[in-house]
Amino acid sequence: MPRVAYVNGIYVQHMSATVHIEDRGFQFADGVYEVISIRNKRLIDPKMHLDRLNRSLFELQISWPTSRGVFSVILKEVILRNRVANGSVYIQITRGISDRDFAYSKNLKPSIIIYTRKTRQDTLETANIGYKVISKPDIRWKRCDIKTVSLLPAVMAKQAAVEAGAVEAWLVNEQGMVTEGTSSNAWIVTLNDELITRNIDNSILSGVTRKSVLKLAQKLNLVLIERAFSLIEAIQAKEAFFTSSTALVKPVIEIDNKKIGEGKVGPITTLLIKNYLSYMDTQNEAY
Amino acid sequence: MPRVAYVNGIYVQHMSATVHIEDRGFQFADGVYEVISIRNKRLIDPKMHLDRLNRSLFELQISWPTSRGVFSVILKEVILRNRVANGSVYIQITRGISDRDFAYSKNLKPSIIIYTRKTRQDTLETANIGYKVISKPDIRWKRCDIKTVSLLPAVMAKQAAVEAGAVEAWLVNEQGMVTEGTSSNAWIVTLNDELITRNIDNSILSGVTRKSVLKLAQKLNLVLIERAFSLIEAIQAKEAFFTSSTALVKPVIEIDNKKIGEGKVGPITTLLIKNYLSYMDTQNEAY
Repeated sequence: MPRVAYVNGIYVQHMSATVHIEDRGFQFADGVYEVISIRNKRLIDPKMHLDRLNRSLFELQISWPTSRGVFSVILKEVILRNRVANGSVYIQITRGISDRDFAYSKNLKPSIIIYTRKTRQDTLETANIGYKVISKPDIRWKRCDIKTVSLLPAVMAKQAAVEAGAVEAWLVNEQGMVTEGTSSNAWIVTLNDELITRNIDNSILSGVTRKSVLKLAQKLNLVLIERAFSLIEAIQAKEAFFTSSTALVKPVIEIDNKKIGEGKVGPITTLLIKNYLSYMDTQNEAY
Repeated sequence: MPRVAYVNGIYVQHMSATVHIEDRGFQFADGVYEVISIRNKRLIDPKMHLDRLNRSLFELQISWPTSRGVFSVILKEVILRNRVANGSVYIQITRGISDRDFAYSKNLKPSIIIYTRKTRQDTLETANIGYKVISKPDIRWKRCDIKTVSLLPAVMAKQAAVEAGAVEAWLVNEQGMVTEGTSSNAWIVTLNDELITRNIDNSILSGVTRKSVLKLAQKLNLVLIERAFSLIEAIQAKEAFFTSSTALVKPVIEIDNKKIGEGKVGPITTLLIKNYLSYMDTQNEAY
């Protein structure tokens, strides 16, 4: 079956899905995006993703290319046409096409692309595996709360992680505090069984999976604290993991080659993975 | 005459010049660029631009899509086909196309686009005009020495400038020091007639026009100091201007609505404009 992408109003073969060379997304990283997971033909937390997309667009003063109602119809159509049972859908909206100029006209027609990817379905067995992360200085800009495609610093840090045999880089600011991963939020469990993840500010993205896991942790009566933690604290933690829409809840058993806790997936992490997988299976939200 | 762009080995109509939606330039700002001015059918400082492009590619571990010799031939061909006597040529090289993933394979084929734009030729009359700039906090990442397309923070600051009736924003770091403009280098002339521009470090781009103007200033026996200056110092300066390949030497007569010197183009700025225009007319460098 051919893979189909939606590009500016038209359904096209993925292979020939293109944007103009003067699309501001290509020349200025002047655009925003979302990735939404699909499990058993259901979108996971679509409303939160589209709300965040709405916020990102607002922060950059880019208007919606369609009404949100029409947008939801298109989103479902792209998924249907690609028959995705498990995987993800990628949405990118840019400011549109214009003669190259840093400043922009407010009348530009935003560009939009939507396409899907199939992946295998995660189970407790495939999810409950420990991974290594490394730390890297956080050299990104000061508005990481906006989900823009200005991702080059994240690319550089992730690449460094992969080349070091790890799966993610945790970014550390000048104060020695972990902000987040390159494409995920960072969490630790302290020796007192407190579950810690950084509070929301301009230095991190407000993760959708982060929010859902916070809610699950509350239901489970875990001791939750949203605050910054240092790299040193992370290395001395009992457990560590990171969350994202595609990584779900990913156990971390080594940071910078130092074992976290006993160097295997901890019980609170496993509990959250189980609960998050169940949570995904209860999704039936309108979007 | 139709406008022609070069895209990955093919000459195409500018209107239909496109890149794939999974080009990493579009999804990750994973690419670099150069803009070279053309005056009287001559490229201005092409060697310095291509050397800088080489450095940018090296810093991101992107390889040249062609040999540098072949690249120069293509560059000339694009300009010829578009019959550009005065204007500029834009070059963008990205890491290439891949299934979306922050990390990248080292075997990707880089993407390249080249296209031109025609503009009127600058003269002393059109160039020797005073402009307003505003200041904005520098919220960019910490590798502004690399000329990447990760330009969104610059876009936001430039847009704020234009909306405030100015032509450029001078970016000010947390120490109150001017780093550079959104797409230009910043200069002042102190009350002692010292010509100041920030020294090169990771917080600014090493401007080609900056380098050429430094050389001209040396020939003119001006007192030159490469060092950081504060926004306050800039506002209290005798003269101010900014340089870039397309803006050339642009006089600044107001910063944040405060007059610089007597609020008109100063004599050292005019001297540098004259000399830079002459310098442009002597260009005949191989590239």
